[in-house]
Formats: sequence, structure tokens, C-alpha cells
Amino acid sequence: MGENGDTEIIEHHVDEEMEKKRILLRSHGSSFMESVTPSERDGHSSTQSSHRLLAYSDALISIIATVMILPVAHTKVQDNEELKESLQVLLTTKIAVYLMTFLIVTVAWAAHIRLFQVIERIDDCLALLNLACMMLITFLPYTFSLMATFPENILGILLFCACVMVLGFIQAVIVVYGFSRPFLLNDQIQVSENQVFYKHHILKVIMRVPIMCFFASIFSFIFFQMSYVILAIVIFLPYISQSLKWCRSKAIGQVEETPDSMMFYTYHPNEPLSKERVEAFSDGVFAIVATLLILDICEDNVPDPVMVQKQYGGSLVAALQNYGPEYLAYFGSFATVALLWFVHHSLFLHVTRTTRFMGLLNTFSLAFVGGLPLAYQLTHEFPRNSRNELEAIQISCVIIFFAGVFQLAIWVAALFSERETLHPYVRYGGREHAFMLAKLALYPCVALGTFFLTCILSKFSASIFHLMEITVPFAFLLLRLLVRGGLALLRLIFCPDGPETRSALEEEEEEEARMPFNTMIT
Amino acid sequence: MGENGDTEIIEHHVDEEMEKKRILLRSHGSSFMESVTPSERDGHSSTQSSHRLLAYSDALISIIATVMILPVAHTKVQDNEELKESLQVLLTTKIAVYLMTFLIVTVAWAAHIRLFQVIERIDDCLALLNLACMMLITFLPYTFSLMATFPENILGILLFCACVMVLGFIQAVIVVYGFSRPFLLNDQIQVSENQVFYKHHILKVIMRVPIMCFFASIFSFIFFQMSYVILAIVIFLPYISQSLKWCRSKAIGQVEETPDSMMFYTYHPNEPLSKERVEAFSDGVFAIVATLLILDICEDNVPDPVMVQKQYGGSLVAALQNYGPEYLAYFGSFATVALLWFVHHSLFLHVTRTTRFMGLLNTFSLAFVGGLPLAYQLTHEFPRNSRNELEAIQISCVIIFFAGVFQLAIWVAALFSERETLHPYVRYGGREHAFMLAKLALYPCVALGTFFLTCILSKFSASIFHLMEITVPFAFLLLRLLVRGGLALLRLIFCPDGPETRSALEEEEEEEARMPFNTMIT
Repeated sequence: MGENGDTEIIEHHVDEEMEKKRILLRSHGSSFMESVTPSERDGHSSTQSSHRLLAYSDALISIIATVMILPVAHTKVQDNEELKESLQVLLTTKIAVYLMTFLIVTVAWAAHIRLFQVIERIDDCLALLNLACMMLITFLPYTFSLMATFPENILGILLFCACVMVLGFIQAVIVVYGFSRPFLLNDQIQVSENQVFYKHHILKVIMRVPIMCFFASIFSFIFFQMSYVILAIVIFLPYISQSLKWCRSKAIGQVEETPDSMMFYTYHPNEPLSKERVEAFSDGVFAIVATLLILDICEDNVPDPVMVQKQYGGSLVAALQNYGPEYLAYFGSFATVALLWFVHHSLFLHVTRTTRFMGLLNTFSLAFVGGLPLAYQLTHEFPRNSRNELEAIQISCVIIFFAGVFQLAIWVAALFSERETLHPYVRYGGREHAFMLAKLALYPCVALGTFFLTCILSKFSASIFHLMEITVPFAFLLLRLLVRGGLALLRLIFCPDGPETRSALEEEEEEEARMPFNTMIT
Repeated sequence: MGENGDTEIIEHHVDEEMEKKRILLRSHGSSFMESVTPSERDGHSSTQSSHRLLAYSDALISIIATVMILPVAHTKVQDNEELKESLQVLLTTKIAVYLMTFLIVTVAWAAHIRLFQVIERIDDCLALLNLACMMLITFLPYTFSLMATFPENILGILLFCACVMVLGFIQAVIVVYGFSRPFLLNDQIQVSENQVFYKHHILKVIMRVPIMCFFASIFSFIFFQMSYVILAIVIFLPYISQSLKWCRSKAIGQVEETPDSMMFYTYHPNEPLSKERVEAFSDGVFAIVATLLILDICEDNVPDPVMVQKQYGGSLVAALQNYGPEYLAYFGSFATVALLWFVHHSLFLHVTRTTRFMGLLNTFSLAFVGGLPLAYQLTHEFPRNSRNELEAIQISCVIIFFAGVFQLAIWVAALFSERETLHPYVRYGGREHAFMLAKLALYPCVALGTFFLTCILSKFSASIFHLMEITVPFAFLLLRLLVRGGLALLRLIFCPDGPETRSALEEEEEEEARMPFNTMIT
């Protein structure tokens, strides 16, 4: 293995890369894209693209964010007591734990995004350190359960603070390690002159939360209510300050920020939140939420052979009919989650860049999506036409409504700064714009309609709800037709001239014709 | 909305794209990569890149593949009975269900890959049809549980066959829809002359399994054992035929296949299995497996306040000490799964293309990874120094060993056709090659060592196992140093000349110097 052999190998390598690029250009397969990114080619000696590490972290974080809905869903509600009373027990602890976990995990996730916007390439050491971070993050929900169950005991808060402090320490190690090997860093920081300034600044930002947790853990010995206050500040402050800033910037106009002050909030001036990571995180949440009910069904809803023999005379079909409502709940929640994913997917096709405020709205939307399986399970747990069933159905409608409304809010927030965040062809006024709006508005409208219908016709609430479940997927299939029809109708009403409508038809035909051509060029 | 307005918008659009490409070239952020792929730009009028849809499908499928380990893990093993007896109960049904689910789901996943290698772009209609497919696939594990619990009852097999037939029908609809809008298709098929031939061929391949299921469902009424045989053929035939083919091609040399006959097995001649999707699927499995235990811990291991007051005099710490072993099990299994992911990640950095045989080995490795949480839970469930504990620890070692060995086998299989599957710099002989081998061999070796140590020193088995858990992550951190030392030692022993060792050092330094330069160019 002399020097010559090595050079030869590298030359060969370069040749192959060229060859592969040529293949790439020919087939422009997006699945190839990732494997030939420049940063991965540096993989050569231990430096690697961080893409897959981040995808894996997103998957872990999204699972952890939604896990705490399980204890809520598994709380048994007695048939004889009113849902309201048991709901109060649920609301006070478990739902609070779920929401707090969701928020703190998304705070940790945002910090993780920022960190890996600075460090764009990884090596083995960073990969292992990141996995250690993940292990600590996945343990956070448990400390919340302890806090909620034993609010007067300081153990929960101490465990939480310890986790956050170790997490901060590991992240500081990652930053110091990254800056000691500048080729791992973001290119802008790599070529910048004041690297030391950046390093200190980033360390300061990272250590802010652990230091607050350090004080919280000290206060917990003296006056433990104080540490909960500090904790609340840690969790909610980023959200509140972000939304305040957004509101102010909309009210008094955008304040021109110097690059350095920009750096104070986001290290990567071009992209406030990485769109790809928001998508990956959302996908993870949607995927785990969609399958939460099948986890239960596979475990609990297989009848015992002995029981079937005794109670049902060996008729499996009769035994399974007991579980009928649970299958319905599964298919209903899967369909709703899948369709909300579909809307989210369509929305983010048009979004080119995600602002922090859009990320915040996305988090709220996902938090409601996480509650869906619970709502659906409640829907089918009660006897027909009982008061509890009606309330469960109405809660489901409310959850669907808010999940959909926050998605709509993302779209509205994107429209406010459409130059930076949206593809040009969906800005105000195009047909795609109308279609997108219809997609986003469908679920909130349907949920609202169902809610009021069940209020009026409370006797048929279950049938109305099931009808809604069945019709919505078809409504999505036919939405494009409906919107076209609606737009044509609007045109007919407001400008009843022949040529206008004809031109729309022509436009359509032209579009159809353009498509294959487009794909041929690109 | 006249014609002129439209053209202007498109022109503006093109300008923006150029601008974005320039940004892309400057920052080469891989996170931007996806959003500017040509196929997504066609998104213009309802056609979209399928990338995110596939990632979401991969996440769903990987969760479903690993779900069935939960009933296995939740089977309570009594302390007083021997593990062996209860293991037999476990082995006969639940583990079989787990493995069957894993295999059938990966078969469905492979079919899904093939389908979306033909249809490379999607629109809303295809996205919704795909979600319907996903819903059916997620229901398959439940039909297996029914079959395993009631092997004599034909309901399970009928449900399974019905699901598969509906699935086949939807996939056929997807193919017909795709071929009716050729701009959605793979470019090679798009420009090919005999599109009709491809269409019929693909339909034939897709309908093969549903038709077999149709016969299985008919046989189930006449002679139900026969339908299980057909089912086994459906599940195992692709695997057996693939491995036979691979062995034959290695034994008698590669048979030159015409493009048409290639098409018979894989529609996309350039890439047998999409590397990106294999990675996404593996990530999903690793993520859900790593968090399976925290799901349980968050739900079950929060003590009841009343119980704490009564039994432990209000001391939460004392109450939590009961759960100590479960925390250990969680951290142990998380660390093992994370490190196996890390090895997998390193392996696939060097792999440029995945053959079907490598995919098969990957499936086997993942199936063992799925069993890890179960093994770790068993490890900590029994009293110290009992016979059961020893057996549980040995089972854990065996599972880790096989998970690692199959990863090693992927590497060996890749080396057999290294020209097509590996980056040039890790082929036989380089230092990276030795390092990769060491990474892959670490877990199997450690597991094997632990296994034999626990056989000899059965009294200290738990301590040995915990020591192993703690040292392995550090071994990974120091592996690069160890391998360098080992290689230097080997050089010293076999060629004890001064210059050789010096040149190695120089090489290293040169490499370090080259790195930042490399990243600057690319």
C-alpha cells in the first residue's frame, strides 16, 4: 500500500464519480441525489454527510414527542360514570404531561436543528455523541410523568434538570469538537474570520437552558414552587418570544437586522428552520400516531381460544364482533391521520422555506394530531346513544378542527411573507392557490359541521360521525373537480362573458400538453 | 387571469429557480437538495416528487414490521417456572407471528419499492391510493395473530387473503392510472416504445400474489392446510429464489441478462433496490425498536402515590428502586440498538448500491434487532443468579450476535460484487476497509465472548453482561485508534522496516491536511 496505489485509487474514485454524475443527469432519479452529495464524498476519510443521522434523530424525537399520549389513551373510563368527571382527572395530569412533553421535546428538537446547522458534516465521534443526546432526550417524558404524579416531590424535577444539564454538556462538547475540526462546520462559518466569536456565541446560546435548570435544581431544595416557574419559563419562553416577535414585525414592519444579530437567533441566516427536518419530524409524528391504535389492537384484541370455546361455542366471528368498534376506531383514526398528513404534504410542497413561527404553528397542529387516536378510541368505547358517546364524538370533532385550523394557520402565516416562503405559482390568485385553500379548509369545515349537527341531532351523532369518516376521503379524491367547478361557477356568476371561460379551458388543455414536455427537459 | 399573466408568473418562477440554484451552489446544503429536485419543480400543476410519500410509507411499514414484538415482550414469564417451558409457548406462536409479520411486511415493502420505481412522480390521486394501501398493510399483522391463535379456523386466512387481494387491486389501479398519465412514469419507460408491454408485464407481476391468495382462500374451504402451504410459498419464495439466484450467479458466473429479462425482476435496471429506501426503512425499525421500552416505562413504571405512601412511607426514591432493573434494561437496549444503527449507518456510507441479496440480509439483521428489547427485558426480570437470568442473558447475546453477523454478511455480500456496490476507497486493502471490518466485527465478537464467559463463569453472568454494556460504546469511540494501533503493530511484525511505518504516519498527516481543502472545493 504505497503512495502510488493510493493516488490511483483516488483517481479511479474521481472517474467513477464523474460516471455516476452522468448517470444522474440522464436519469435525474432523486433517489440517487443523496448518495452523491459533495459532503458525502468527503466521507473518504471519516467525514460524513449528516443527513441520515438527522433523519434518525428526527424519527426518535417524533416518537418520543407522541409517546405520552399512550398513558392518556389507556386510562379506562368507566361506563357508568359520566365522561366529564373522569375527563377532569385526565385533564389535570395526563394531558398536561402529554402537552408539556410535546413542547419540551420540540424545544430540544429546535436546539438540535440549530446545532446541526452549524455543524454540517459529522464523523464517528459526533455520531456517537449525538446518539448519547438522543438517549437523554428519550428519557425526558418519564421525568415529566414523575413530576405530574408527585408534584410535591423534588425527585422528578431533579432528574429532569440533571438530564438537561448532561444534555447541555454533551452539546457543548459537540460544539468544541466541531470547532476544533473546522472542516465539519457550516461553510459560512468555515470561511468567516471570527470563528472564535461564533464559537463563544453558540456555546452561550446552548448553555442558557442548562444554567437555568441548574438554578431550578438549587431552588428545588429551598422553595420548590420556584423551580416549576423556572421550568415553565424554559418551556414556554421560546414560543412566546417567537410569536411576540412575529406579531411585532408584522405590526411595525420588518426591522432590518444585521447579520450578526440574525446569528443571535438562528445560525443559518438563509433558512430559519430546515424545511426538510420539519417534514421529517412531522412524518414521524404522523406515522407513529397512525399506528398507535394497531399497536393496541394487535396486543389486546386477539380473543383467548378457551374463552371463545366457552362463551361463543367456538364461533370466532361472534367473538370478534365484540371488537368491531375497535376496528372502526382504528380505520377511522388511520384515515383521518393519513388525510391530515396528505394535507400537510400538499402544503409543504408549496412551501420553500419555513419560518420559526410556521414551525410553532406546525407543532401545535401536530400536538392535536397526537390526541386523535385517543379521541377515536373514546368514541367507540361507550354504549350507543349514551351521553358519553356524544361527548366523545364532539371532542373528536374539536381535535380534528384544531389540527386542521393550525395547518390552515401555517398557510396564512406563509402568505404573510409569501416572497420568502412560497413557490410563486401558489401566491394569491392562482388556481393552485384556491385548490390549496380548499384542501386546507376541508377538515376544519367538516369537523365544525359535524360538531353542530351532533349538537342538534344528538340522537344520530354516531351515524353522522361515521358518515363523515366515510365521505371525507372521497371528498379529497374529488376535490380538484369540485374546486374547478366552483371556480367556473364563480366566473360564470361574476363575469358571465364567453371568452373568459373558454380561455380557462384552453389554459387547462395547454397545461396538460405542457407537462410531459416539462419533464422531458428537466 | 389572462394568458399573459400566466406566462409572467412562469418566467418569474424560472428566475427564482435560477436564484435558488445559485444559493445552492454557494452553500451546497444538503437540506436544500430535496426541495429543488427537478421532479418537484414539475409540482407546478399537481405533479409532485414522490420522495416524501415514500419516506412516510417507509416509516409506517417499518413500525408495522416491528409491532408484533410487543405481544412477545409483554408475555409474563413466571419467576418460579423455568424459562425453557414458557419459552416454548412463546416460540411456537408469538415469535412465529413476529417473524412471519416481519417477512410478509418486507415482501410488501419490496413490492412497494418496485411499484414506485416505475411511477416516479405522483399526484394527489396516487397519494391517496397509496395511503389506502398503507392502511391495508398495517392491518396484516392482526390477521397473523388470528391465524396463530386459531390455526384451525379459516377466518384469519380469509381476512389475510381479502386484504392482499384488495391491496393487489389498488396497486393495479395505481399502475393503470400511472400509465394513463405517462409523465408520472420513470423516464426510461416514458421514452420507451413498448409502454404497453411494460404495463402488462408489471400488472402480471403485481397480480401474481393476489391470485395465489385467491386460490388460498378457495382452498381454505376445502382443505385448509393447503392454504397455509400456499401462504408459505408467497412469503418465502421471493427470498429463496433470490438467494438461490445469487448463489448460482456466484458459482457459475454472472449470466448476461438482456434488459427485458432484467425487467422481469426489477423494473429499474440501474438500481436493484433503492438504497435510500433501504436506509429509511432501517432507520424506522431502529427508531421504533430503540423506543419500545420507553413506551412501557412511561406507562407502567410511575408508582401509585397511595402505594408509595403506604409501602415506602412516602419515600419516592425507595419506591423507584424497584424499577431500577427496568431503567437498566432501557438504557442497555437503547445503547445496543443505537450502536447497531451506527454500524449500519457506517456500512451504508460505503455502499453505493444495494442488491436484492443485501436487502435480504438486511431484513434478517433487522428482524433480530427487533427482538433486542424483548431480550433485554427478560434479562432484568429475574432474580439475581437464577437459572432463568443466565438463560435470558445468553439469549440476548445470541440475538446481538446474529444481528451483528448479518450486518457483517451484508458487507461480505457487497465485497463479492464490489465494483457495483462499494465506494472505491473501501475496497479490499485500504485502511478504511480494515476500520469498517473492525466496526462490523466488534458486536459479534463481544457477544460471542460474553456468551462463552457466562457459560464458564455463570455466577458472574450479570456483572459480565453489564460490563459489556458499559465498555462497548467506549470501544466504538476508541475503535479508530485501536485499528490504527493494530495495523501499525501488524506492519511492525511483518515488515519491520523503518520507512514503511513512517510513510503511514506521513500519509495520515497528509490526509488531515487534505481534508479542509477537499471540502473547500466541493
